Formats: sequence, structure tokens, C-alpha cells
Amino acid sequence: MTYCVGMVLDKGLLFMSDTRTNAGLDNISTFRKMTVWETPGECVITLMAAGNLATTQAVVSLLDERSKSPEERKPSLLTAPSLFQAVRMVAETLREVIEQQGSGGLRADSTFNATLIVGGQIAGSPPRLFMIYPEGNFIEAGRDTPFFQIGETKYGRPILVRAYDPAMSFEEAMKLLIVSFDSTLKANLTVGAPFDYHFYETDSLKRGAQGRIEQDNPYFQAVSKGWGDALKEALDSLPAFSPARR
Amino acid sequence: MTYCVGMVLDKGLLFMSDTRTNAGLDNISTFRKMTVWETPGECVITLMAAGNLATTQAVVSLLDERSKSPEERKPSLLTAPSLFQAVRMVAETLREVIEQQGSGGLRADSTFNATLIVGGQIAGSPPRLFMIYPEGNFIEAGRDTPFFQIGETKYGRPILVRAYDPAMSFEEAMKLLIVSFDSTLKANLTVGAPFDYHFYETDSLKRGAQGRIEQDNPYFQAVSKGWGDALKEALDSLPAFSPARR
Repeated sequence: MTYCVGMVLDKGLLFMSDTRTNAGLDNISTFRKMTVWETPGECVITLMAAGNLATTQAVVSLLDERSKSPEERKPSLLTAPSLFQAVRMVAETLREVIEQQGSGGLRADSTFNATLIVGGQIAGSPPRLFMIYPEGNFIEAGRDTPFFQIGETKYGRPILVRAYDPAMSFEEAMKLLIVSFDSTLKANLTVGAPFDYHFYETDSLKRGAQGRIEQDNPYFQAVSKGWGDALKEALDSLPAFSPARR
Repeated sequence: MTYCVGMVLDKGLLFMSDTRTNAGLDNISTFRKMTVWETPGECVITLMAAGNLATTQAVVSLLDERSKSPEERKPSLLTAPSLFQAVRMVAETLREVIEQQGSGGLRADSTFNATLIVGGQIAGSPPRLFMIYPEGNFIEAGRDTPFFQIGETKYGRPILVRAYDPAMSFEEAMKLLIVSFDSTLKANLTVGAPFDYHFYETDSLKRGAQGRIEQDNPYFQAVSKGWGDALKEALDSLPAFSPARR
């Protein structure tokens, strides 16, 4: 499984992804699931992927090759006139790869599906965030749903729903995501540290703060340990149940 | 879907279940999923069910009929020598019903599966809590896993994992369960109020506090609204992320 979150904030876009890949429970490895493309001053695009690793790696490699040789017939991601067109390109590549892997050759029990989160900014337009389904269609985040989750979305969702605030700073949003990732990590063995993050600052048109949080990162450990106590205090602050108030 | 939790506390056993049943998203109804049998002074057994409603109702009806006419050939739930034997009886009945519904007759797209939580006390033994799988085998709660969830278990799990404490009073445990149910309710349309609860007090050998919490229950509303603020405060109490501490 996988857990990735992309989030629209007033100050920019925040992305976080785990790195665990598993083929069965007895075969796990660490793979980066986040890719950032940029042409400073023009365009920054971040992609996160959940699903079949061969599919998502093929999609990223194809997009990568095509953005490095812009003379190729296929259009390049980094020269797309708008983020909408860039996302269409990614979606088309995804559909192409799934079709190729699914037709002919050996059949696998599991599917070749993948779900992607793509967000960024192209000069002249505001930052945008999209989620692409395996079928190649996609949706854009809006005010009502300002974040997307892919992979194991359930355990980490309640805290996002309750505590998300578009006015959050990068540091506050990172804290929120780390709590959400920690809850998921504690419940699903197929989601695992380290976590990669990228914060794209609105109108910067260049890579923002980027890094990797390892399992033994002191900040991660402090939040993970502190969150249990903080939750207990939160619960204590609510009135106790009394049958009389039924 | 469904959401039920059974929990072992120092002071007794706490059970809570939702009441939403759905056949598709456009066909929902309210059904009680909790049944309590008792012979005061001798035996109290609580059963909660998730899964195919026809299956779970058949299981409860069969157990009910058999416990009302103890002269019937089949053994009665309320005369079982131990809770382990009572649970074996329930599991056997479940297997019987699934087998009957699954063989012959029209085939349904969905399965006739059901998962049960059964807990209680029989005079002379301590209270015990079990979870029965559709296959008819079952597991017992222990110190390491002192609660069972069935149905939509994911959204409501992180708070249980973090805040459960065996020393909690009935009132505190109710608060915890209401928060867990509220998180689930907010995320999955097929889990819905009202919620039924039963608190069995250790060694009382009679029904304990029992009731139903409606959606518009003032306490439920207060906790649901207060929890968002409490969570935000909990998050605020943790240190903010700083890339320097990576």
C-alpha cells in the first residue's frame, strides 16, 4: 500500500508521501513515490503515485524522458501551456502504460492500476492540485475539498478533516501531516517511513522546502509520542458522558 | 456497512453499535445490531453483528428461540457452562446459517457473510470478550488487544489505539467511543446514528446501563462539536516542524 497527501494552502501546496512498497507481506522495500519537475521561473510540477510500482515508475520515466528531449514528437510536461494540459498529459501517459501492461504478456493476479496526485504552478496561473484515477480521468481540488489522499486513506483522514485550515503555515501543515502519517503507520504495516515532503510556495516558480523524514527523526519521534498524550488531554477536555443527559 | 466496538475495561465490558443498514447507497434503513440475553444472577451475554442483515438476524432469532425453549434438542445459550461454550454455540449457529443461505436457491452478488462480537459473563468465571469470523472460528480479547471493532473499523481506530485505558470509567469510555463513532460517521455514509450501547458491570450478572444515542442527542452534539476544537488545541500543543531539526 502507500499513503500520500497533497494539500492546498493559502501559502502554497504541500505534498507528503511514504516510501514503502510491498509485494505480499513478506517482501517490502523502500521506493521514492514523489517526483518534482521544474523550469525555474516558469513551471514546477510535483507528482505522487500510489498503486502498481512498475506502472508508476514507467509513467514517471516516460514523462521524464519526454521532458528532457522536448524535440520528441510527444509534447513535454514542462512546456504545457497550463497545469490542466500538463495533467492531461500525465493522465494520458498513465492510461497508455496501464493499457500496454494489461494487454498481452503474462497476466498478473493483481491489477496494474495506479492513482496519482499532481500539483504545481505554471507562470501566469495560480497553483492547482489534481488527482488522476487509473481510468485517466481526473478531478481538481477546490475550496470544499482542499486536499487529496491516495493509498491507505482512512486512518489518517479524521485528523485532516478536523484540523485542516487553509491559513496554516508550512510548519503547522507539516505537523498535521506528520500526525496523519503517524496514525496510518501505526495501523497499516504496508505504509512505512521514511516520508518525503515538498512544499511549493505560491508564485515562487521554483522548488520549495524538500526533504525526507526518517523513522528515527527526533521531530517525528517527538510528535508521535506527544500526540498520544495530547489526544488524551483533548479527550479529557470534553464533558464526561452522563446517561441522565440522554 | 456497520460500526461496532466491544471493549474490555477493568470495571466491565462496554459495547456500542450503530444502526445503519444499507443495500446500495440509495436504500438505507435503521436496524438494531445489538442483542442482550440474560438470566439474572447467572449469565449475561451481549452480541453485536456486522455483515449481511438476513444472516445476522437469522443467527439472533435462532439463538433466541433456542434460549427460550431450553427443552429443545439443541443446547441453549443461557445454559452454556462457560462463555467459551456459549461462543462456540453462536459460531456454530452462524456457520449453519451461512451454509443454508449460501447453498441452493438464488445466488446473490454479495455474500451472506457476517462477523460478530460476543461478550459477557457466566457465574463463576470472569467477563470475556470474543470476535467470531464468518468461517465460524473466533478469537478472544486479551491484554494486548483489549477491544474489537467490526464493520468500518479504520476511521475510528486511531483514537481508540491512542486513548484506550483499561482503568477508564463507564462515562470516560462512553466519551471515547462516541468520539470514535463520530469520526467514522463523518467519513462513511454507511455508518449512521442512532448508536446503541450496553455497559456490563463485572460480577453484576445482570444487564447494565443500556440506551440509545440519537443524532440530535445534546451530549453527542456537544462532543462532536467540541472534538474539532479539542483536536486543534492538541495539535497546537505539539512543537511546530522545523527543517533544521531534520
